[in-house]
Amino acid sequence: MTEPKRATIYDVARTAGVSKSLVSLVLRNSPNVSPARRQAVLEAIEQLNYRPSHAAASLAGGSSRTVGVVIDDYTNLWFVELLRGLQDGLSAAGLRIAVSDRTLNAHIASDPLDGFLSTRVEALVLATEPTESMRIPANMPVVVAGNRAMKIPGADVVASDDRAGARQATEHLLSLGHRRIGHLTGGGGASQQRREGYEQAMRAAGLEALVIAPGSATTEETGYRGTQELLTRFPNTTAILAGNDSMAMGALAAARERDLQVPGELSVVGYDASPLAATHLLQLTTVDSLNSEIGAEVAAALLSRLADPAREPVSVRLAPRLIQRRTTAAPGRR
Amino acid sequence: MTEPKRATIYDVARTAGVSKSLVSLVLRNSPNVSPARRQAVLEAIEQLNYRPSHAAASLAGGSSRTVGVVIDDYTNLWFVELLRGLQDGLSAAGLRIAVSDRTLNAHIASDPLDGFLSTRVEALVLATEPTESMRIPANMPVVVAGNRAMKIPGADVVASDDRAGARQATEHLLSLGHRRIGHLTGGGGASQQRREGYEQAMRAAGLEALVIAPGSATTEETGYRGTQELLTRFPNTTAILAGNDSMAMGALAAARERDLQVPGELSVVGYDASPLAATHLLQLTTVDSLNSEIGAEVAAALLSRLADPAREPVSVRLAPRLIQRRTTAAPGRR
Repeated sequence: MTEPKRATIYDVARTAGVSKSLVSLVLRNSPNVSPARRQAVLEAIEQLNYRPSHAAASLAGGSSRTVGVVIDDYTNLWFVELLRGLQDGLSAAGLRIAVSDRTLNAHIASDPLDGFLSTRVEALVLATEPTESMRIPANMPVVVAGNRAMKIPGADVVASDDRAGARQATEHLLSLGHRRIGHLTGGGGASQQRREGYEQAMRAAGLEALVIAPGSATTEETGYRGTQELLTRFPNTTAILAGNDSMAMGALAAARERDLQVPGELSVVGYDASPLAATHLLQLTTVDSLNSEIGAEVAAALLSRLADPAREPVSVRLAPRLIQRRTTAAPGRR
Repeated sequence: MTEPKRATIYDVARTAGVSKSLVSLVLRNSPNVSPARRQAVLEAIEQLNYRPSHAAASLAGGSSRTVGVVIDDYTNLWFVELLRGLQDGLSAAGLRIAVSDRTLNAHIASDPLDGFLSTRVEALVLATEPTESMRIPANMPVVVAGNRAMKIPGADVVASDDRAGARQATEHLLSLGHRRIGHLTGGGGASQQRREGYEQAMRAAGLEALVIAPGSATTEETGYRGTQELLTRFPNTTAILAGNDSMAMGALAAARERDLQVPGELSVVGYDASPLAATHLLQLTTVDSLNSEIGAEVAAALLSRLADPAREPVSVRLAPRLIQRRTTAAPGRR
């Protein structure tokens, strides 16, 4: 049985037309390499599917070969596909990811990035709302994943068009015949844009927007409380667009508590196409932000930034897509 | 408004009766400190709630002050409370955590620990089943969290008594009057021990064990498929002990598909007391492994190991506790 021979650093050097030691410099992310030669090496690495030995690279260069990803909260599973796309995109270049949860670190009275900076990550992905207190070193490559209220100077941004996604979800409910559609919102840039998309679609249909803001968190708990409030204030609501899948799960719980059949008496739409939405138990209609593709774009932005630290920041925006499952239908007898 | 003055490195040195530079050595985890003096410094740090500046410690010593935690799968939320307890226990000593997901890294043809080792984590927590391929350096402090089939020489182990927990859950169902109780199992040490606990309780009650093994994964998907198989093979089953909360969620979905009311016609018990089990939608009866306390014990083991690298490995076992919510009741009319 013959297996394809695994590419070596010599193969990469030959393909890129450079010396082996220059390949080493690129692997160690040395600043002493021209952008053009760095690009040639990265392309050869991808073409040959070369995988450097991490241990060797680490011993040789003191480079961590690791990208730190800061997420909000492990219990909101929207980030899982993002990490998958990111991991796929980075692994060819021999980079790995380590994740830190913002919520978990919040009670420590220090910068949530300190941990990553002290482990010498080579780049940061912020899949969370940035804050003033984040002390990001000037030379650290940063990509912001998702729509965020605060801008980081010099950072690339890769995000889904949350306004378009929420508009599409609302139009789906309108096309089913719903007129009394409520929206549950939370804090942060993505929530704000989703709310605007919902409001645009309702306005375009000549309908009143019913927005409930049960708090800044976008969790099952706030979704549950928000739905209670919505159905108390507007008892004839027939559909809900939740700010994300966790909130939609809470909406399903509140509906069950009031003996409302989903989707027969109440339609519920989530947002994020998280693993939760795909479960047999939820089978939730949701908006797919194509988080795996966003992860791949984040990886591409990081690799090109490492190849050329001086390039202008980019902003990439992807169009989302509605996934219809079992929680939406035409309005019933209410 | 006066705030309590924040402890400095000088306060720690004074309290421990050592020099400031010796405190620095301990913070950098230098081997040139006697176990007794290291212990005195760690106690002073805890007593004063001293928080070293990470950036300063990192610059001074090249120490990452970070503990790497390897988990199985981000979508199984059992680890969230473990991380909380671990973070609480480590933060007083100025240590942080970074997490890596085993499932996500699995398609990369290299050791899942490489990333952490190259970022120079100071210690490892394995909250996953270890494998032969893991290349753990001989001098790396390791704590295994949870019951695992493979042993790591020299590692401390902190785990819940999974046999006792499954026995307790089965006895809860027996005490409600159930006799036809099925169990859904998966791969790994924890699954094995939970299965044994279930079998012990069934045997003690003179009943037949009905074990379904839908695969090595313990996910919503395997829980769903396992329940389909269980209810097809043993249609008069009135209760299910799932291998964990994710599998229990799948069991709830399969029950709904067969129009079985939970708990009226089918009782379901999970395991792990994960955030999923506590949601309004699930309100799942489950076994609390006290994962936050396990995290605290893991932190204590790590700190004492850092203080005395030569001490004998310890094995800590905690007793679990049943949490009754809304998915269990006396058997109905089936």
